[in-house]
Amino acid sequence: MIVYFAGLGSMGSGMARCLIHAGHEVHLLDHNPERVASLHEAGGHPLQGNAPPADAIVSVVMNAEQTRSVLFADEALALRLKPGGVIVSCATVSPAFASEMEAEANNLGQLYVDAPISGGAVKAAEGTLSMMVSGKAEALKAATPLFDAMAETVHRMGDTAGAGSAMKAVNQLLAGIHVAAMGEALAFAASQKLDLEQVVKVVSASAGTSWMFENRAPHVVQSDYTPLSKLDIWLKDLGIVTDIARAADLPVPVAASALSQFRDASDAGFGQQDDAAVAKYAASRGGITLPGER
Amino acid sequence: MIVYFAGLGSMGSGMARCLIHAGHEVHLLDHNPERVASLHEAGGHPLQGNAPPADAIVSVVMNAEQTRSVLFADEALALRLKPGGVIVSCATVSPAFASEMEAEANNLGQLYVDAPISGGAVKAAEGTLSMMVSGKAEALKAATPLFDAMAETVHRMGDTAGAGSAMKAVNQLLAGIHVAAMGEALAFAASQKLDLEQVVKVVSASAGTSWMFENRAPHVVQSDYTPLSKLDIWLKDLGIVTDIARAADLPVPVAASALSQFRDASDAGFGQQDDAAVAKYAASRGGITLPGER
Repeated sequence: MIVYFAGLGSMGSGMARCLIHAGHEVHLLDHNPERVASLHEAGGHPLQGNAPPADAIVSVVMNAEQTRSVLFADEALALRLKPGGVIVSCATVSPAFASEMEAEANNLGQLYVDAPISGGAVKAAEGTLSMMVSGKAEALKAATPLFDAMAETVHRMGDTAGAGSAMKAVNQLLAGIHVAAMGEALAFAASQKLDLEQVVKVVSASAGTSWMFENRAPHVVQSDYTPLSKLDIWLKDLGIVTDIARAADLPVPVAASALSQFRDASDAGFGQQDDAAVAKYAASRGGITLPGER
Repeated sequence: MIVYFAGLGSMGSGMARCLIHAGHEVHLLDHNPERVASLHEAGGHPLQGNAPPADAIVSVVMNAEQTRSVLFADEALALRLKPGGVIVSCATVSPAFASEMEAEANNLGQLYVDAPISGGAVKAAEGTLSMMVSGKAEALKAATPLFDAMAETVHRMGDTAGAGSAMKAVNQLLAGIHVAAMGEALAFAASQKLDLEQVVKVVSASAGTSWMFENRAPHVVQSDYTPLSKLDIWLKDLGIVTDIARAADLPVPVAASALSQFRDASDAGFGQQDDAAVAKYAASRGGITLPGER
């Protein structure tokens, strides 16, 4: 298939590479020319004005605003899709926004898949992501060769855009709370003079464990806050969760409390560090120093 | 060993049975004579006033108040221990309370192990609990035959009472937040018209999962709130967490938010149901009905 691929960040670059390896003709768009050059060497094409019309667009940009810009506004890639072509949109957005994008695509005679992703940069590079997809049956069918190249697991959530994004929001609500809880738990453990390495071992074997705890707590023990996933991402993702909840008149106080911790930690200067740094912020409020910190 | 065993609830009855099976002479104490009778049939002895002095006491009562009563006040079992005998105290209590009990035991010339447990009634019955223990080396050594009969994993947290209880509090902080998060997430998912059975499947395979989510969310999907672990237990366990944090001048806002959900759910009448019922409370605030509810 001829694919326009927008957004070559840590997730997108791996996904684009998988599409190239699967034999698709991939035309690349990113504001950073080095990223485009790197994928060009791997067999992709920088997207030119005279590129052939696309069978599909895959968009792995940061947020709703960039999604709209790439698809329908500034870059308006949707206007360069073949009639009946399919848009696969992976940014974490609200279900309402995904529905709006689907309607815009349908108005142009095109198909739309609401397709948030989960799994991180390593799985993106391996083509083993999880995707939570929703859209019309013909849209999902048209996008299947792309799913096959990029994902190990495709969760089909429904036949209209929005359900995929809603599922992603559920996952982010939990994951965000669990990261904040990890930070609070390790600060609490340090306040009780427990050895954090042992705490991580015991929790990981106990009912208090979570995927996020097992993944992030070792960063705190090793005092390594290299941003594998930046703390500030939670301001966006938990912000989407609380916005959706507000629109549904549903209080989500635990998620709101977690968001508040990330916001305060960001204000305290931890926003560009790994999200495990929420533990440093939690500890600092009690005057506690975590391992490797001063 | 001659063991006095106090507290034959869902955990204690299984643990006492394991001690009997391991060949110990177990003398049983519980306010409920039926529980004592049941363990009597299994080979234990109702604790009489003329029972031989004990080598050890195992206390699996509900809380600090009962622990003090059984060991040093009303029942004062500690006075009936042989000199140099060991007390193994399993209730979830504050580290400060555990230290106080250790000091009382030491004043009587006896040993004390701070020994909170984790794993649930099934593992208690199998003798495969996790124990988070701390105490003097000689206390831990004296209690080892008892650990061997009751636990699969013994986490040795330190050489004074308090560290075991602190470790347990860290675990409960996380586990309690995760149960509240599970409730909030399923209410949120229902508000977005997602199929909860599919949501549980997707989350369980994603970064948003936790041990508690995978254990409790199916109760919500099946609308089965048979109290395997009562919601009201979190008022005590997260109450201990927030008390410890307050004493350490450490804010724990996410844990406090989770506690607040359990308190409100209890006030709304869900306290004696399974703790997964926190999902029903979370949903009710948004006017949402979960599967199987009216």
